[in-house]
Amino acid sequence: MQFHVLFCLAVMVLAVNANRQPGQFSDDSYSALGNEIPLLGDTSPGSVWPKPQMQTSSPMVYEVAVQKFVFTYASTSHKCDLTEEAFKRYEMLIYNTASQLKLQFRPRAVPSLTTLTVNLLSACEEYPSLHMNESYSLEIGDSALLSAPSVWGVLRGLETFSQLMWQTDTNQVLMNKTSILDFPRYAHRGILLDSSRHYLPMEAILHNLEAMAYNKINVFHWHIVDDQSFPFVSRTYPDLSGKGAYNPSTHIYTPENVAEIIEFGRLRGIRVVPEFDTPGHSQSWGKGQSGLLTPCYSNGKPDGTFGPIDPTVNSTYTFVEGLFTEVKSVFHDQYIHLGGDEVSFNCWKSNPDITKWMALQNITGDYATLESVYIQQILDISASVGYSYIVWQEVIDNGVKVKNDTVVEVWINNKPDEELAKVTAKGYRALLAAPWYLDYISTGEDWQKYYLYEPSNFNGTDAQKQLLMGGEACLWGEYVDGTNVTPRLWPRASAVAERLWSAEDVNDVEEATPRLNQHRCRMIRRGIPAEPLRPGYCTHEWKNI
Amino acid sequence: MQFHVLFCLAVMVLAVNANRQPGQFSDDSYSALGNEIPLLGDTSPGSVWPKPQMQTSSPMVYEVAVQKFVFTYASTSHKCDLTEEAFKRYEMLIYNTASQLKLQFRPRAVPSLTTLTVNLLSACEEYPSLHMNESYSLEIGDSALLSAPSVWGVLRGLETFSQLMWQTDTNQVLMNKTSILDFPRYAHRGILLDSSRHYLPMEAILHNLEAMAYNKINVFHWHIVDDQSFPFVSRTYPDLSGKGAYNPSTHIYTPENVAEIIEFGRLRGIRVVPEFDTPGHSQSWGKGQSGLLTPCYSNGKPDGTFGPIDPTVNSTYTFVEGLFTEVKSVFHDQYIHLGGDEVSFNCWKSNPDITKWMALQNITGDYATLESVYIQQILDISASVGYSYIVWQEVIDNGVKVKNDTVVEVWINNKPDEELAKVTAKGYRALLAAPWYLDYISTGEDWQKYYLYEPSNFNGTDAQKQLLMGGEACLWGEYVDGTNVTPRLWPRASAVAERLWSAEDVNDVEEATPRLNQHRCRMIRRGIPAEPLRPGYCTHEWKNI
Repeated sequence: MQFHVLFCLAVMVLAVNANRQPGQFSDDSYSALGNEIPLLGDTSPGSVWPKPQMQTSSPMVYEVAVQKFVFTYASTSHKCDLTEEAFKRYEMLIYNTASQLKLQFRPRAVPSLTTLTVNLLSACEEYPSLHMNESYSLEIGDSALLSAPSVWGVLRGLETFSQLMWQTDTNQVLMNKTSILDFPRYAHRGILLDSSRHYLPMEAILHNLEAMAYNKINVFHWHIVDDQSFPFVSRTYPDLSGKGAYNPSTHIYTPENVAEIIEFGRLRGIRVVPEFDTPGHSQSWGKGQSGLLTPCYSNGKPDGTFGPIDPTVNSTYTFVEGLFTEVKSVFHDQYIHLGGDEVSFNCWKSNPDITKWMALQNITGDYATLESVYIQQILDISASVGYSYIVWQEVIDNGVKVKNDTVVEVWINNKPDEELAKVTAKGYRALLAAPWYLDYISTGEDWQKYYLYEPSNFNGTDAQKQLLMGGEACLWGEYVDGTNVTPRLWPRASAVAERLWSAEDVNDVEEATPRLNQHRCRMIRRGIPAEPLRPGYCTHEWKNI
Repeated sequence: MQFHVLFCLAVMVLAVNANRQPGQFSDDSYSALGNEIPLLGDTSPGSVWPKPQMQTSSPMVYEVAVQKFVFTYASTSHKCDLTEEAFKRYEMLIYNTASQLKLQFRPRAVPSLTTLTVNLLSACEEYPSLHMNESYSLEIGDSALLSAPSVWGVLRGLETFSQLMWQTDTNQVLMNKTSILDFPRYAHRGILLDSSRHYLPMEAILHNLEAMAYNKINVFHWHIVDDQSFPFVSRTYPDLSGKGAYNPSTHIYTPENVAEIIEFGRLRGIRVVPEFDTPGHSQSWGKGQSGLLTPCYSNGKPDGTFGPIDPTVNSTYTFVEGLFTEVKSVFHDQYIHLGGDEVSFNCWKSNPDITKWMALQNITGDYATLESVYIQQILDISASVGYSYIVWQEVIDNGVKVKNDTVVEVWINNKPDEELAKVTAKGYRALLAAPWYLDYISTGEDWQKYYLYEPSNFNGTDAQKQLLMGGEACLWGEYVDGTNVTPRLWPRASAVAERLWSAEDVNDVEEATPRLNQHRCRMIRRGIPAEPLRPGYCTHEWKNI
């Protein structure tokens, strides 16, 4: 997808390392070093998850000077606040690795690495986006160089660099001579978390954003509100959380909280895409905004329950425009997720005002068109406030007319390949979530199922395949909160992360297993309680509880 | 089971509270107080899990003086180190509850409770046992009194007392006028944790023992070793962990660790029953004890793999006797679990030395008898070192001859009621685990299935029913370690805890749901990350990660 950029990168890397032939490290350098550590395959310590597009490693090793390691810019490099913040994070991470270790005795000396030189080839960017360039090249040799055409590639490359470190039995921290060219297969690699079915404390969200960065996930799809609660604090409509949150003081996300999450993501190259799902899934909205939901009727009179948002009154659209104007000012991403899933027509059918309105519009009985009227206006409002948008697949399945630039997310796990073929045949861009609903749990290694689902495996032309922007692992919140969200998400979501980042032919479960186990142990050492795959152990087990 | 004791208790309680009629609190006292808080049902804050056998509550409330609350002995009471340690724990717990709260404004004054008087009616005991008396009575009125015939009942009553506290919206801590008579339905209420498939750090085990006490679980069935690793450090045979642990320095339980766990359990009335599963499930044993496992043969020669323990050589029994002598000196409980499950005969069949030995014994081809020979000797050794024992059901299913006092644990989830009928018809005492294998996970509220399984529902005489000593919730370790063991165990194991403690007719899921949710939120406040049941929230969410 980013081959012309990578071609340039490759040329550049070869120029920098003119005296080396990546992949063909000479036996001489090995012998000269006299080091007997065998060639590292991907199953060896220091392997990278998700697997880079191109990597060659050599048995030659360097000792990482963990106590004093620093990142520096190349003289020709652009500079960027994002890069400098990342330098601090990864220097701390490398230092912390050292502080956990007790060097038992001094093994034979090997050359030391004290610096990674970073060459950022273009000007700093402020926010990650769908179109950001995440490619990078990384050379570990007598000197170490990370080059990338954009700051986002620098972030990805720093993560890779940190994963190349490994510890010997004597706790020496080593890194193999390595050459990497890397870029993502898909541009949108997301994780959905749901803060409505259960409130997720800030700590839980921030920790999982950190884990996303460790897995090169680049989108946090924040399903922030739903039927059960409305924790988003709107300055324009404070009653939404005031009456719709589980608790209006403690179970909310203030504008400051949201800004903190966006900034935390931005620093790690993670987009924060909020979902405000309508016209269904909006029961909690009705508590703070009277007249918004459709009153349901039984036996000719309102029965006290409410259905989807009422699409027939102007006040609905005035309200949504007000809310989305605020949302756009809070969430920086180009995209909003508008939901549109699981809209039941029963309440609309029961309501005489809706029936009357539909008769006036000459659409009596045609509830799909009624939904279409609503969605069309919501899309118009979203566009007018400056948003591009994503919708769940039913919007298309139900024949709702949408704009050509709509992104359709496929979630129903009944032949999602056929749905992708249908959606892309209509020319829409698509996201795949169906095979990766991590809230469904079962005994055993379900990560393999997630890992092996090939998203591009649907009937369609090359042009259709290009319309698949990526996918998302979804951990809906009915059965998770701060107590269990992190171990339930990791390393199961890591399987999806590699599927969406790495090459299509990286699909060997046997090869992946020890590498994924190593990655989960790495996450544990970094403070993420990633659950086990199968019987085994980590050198450093999780002890916090 | 403990009715005669309870009868005495009931008389005593009625004598102490001669001016009250439990269950018929007068309207006068309610009016006189002028308090409008409604009668608390079990679904209200301050409800107890597992549900007491007999409880009456009144709308009259007392304010718990959380900052200065103390426990004292009645003048006639026996004294005990266990009680005093428990006083400290629960005073701290009550104080910590207070420190989490910010009293928002002073509501109308109600009478204050500053003391719970404890009357221990018999001399202190040192270790919990199968035959311990856990009954107690608790009266909360103008004064508060906990009476119990043994220290174990005091521990259970203190837990109940701590659960009766609830907080108003203004964070006042209240307790309703309450009268409780309580005792367990089953004497053995266990949880199995497995420290072999994954090593469980000490912190994880101790935290879960704490949670067990919060659920009146009284047995920690410690499946300490298995095929995958041997973390138990034996002073007699140090190579067992030295070569059989995942890591002989970090992934082990030293004698000091084991003593700490036993003491931690003892203080909470929890027995620690170790399982040393043989002759199968013992691959890790063979690493540190050569000659113990049966060499398997292929094509007429040893193929390098090993099967179950070799039952035909004297060295096996010398070793087991040495090990069990040490185990008995370390683990104080009367019982050891000897395993005996899933013994494959294939390796024995392949081995010519085994075949020759069986011919000499005139049992050619009869591998069940071979197993029987082994088990019989293991039982004899266990008895000789002073142990009573528990075995998994196959030992009986395979027709192995065992001693009459053997306890049989039913784990195979294929008509466990028929197995219970069979085992008890043979006169053996039984434990039920089959319906409660918590390592099997599925999406949704599986706690209901655990909750509704009625253990006594098998064909048999009253005498047979009396042979069912209780049951165990088993969380095998293939897919859990310190990262996820606690939220996976709680509150799912709480469902089993109530099934085994409370009366048979306490089996209404609708009634139990809000009470269990309240209990999980209570566990969260006490530092146990118990996972959610369904969409909802806790006033204080889990924030540690």
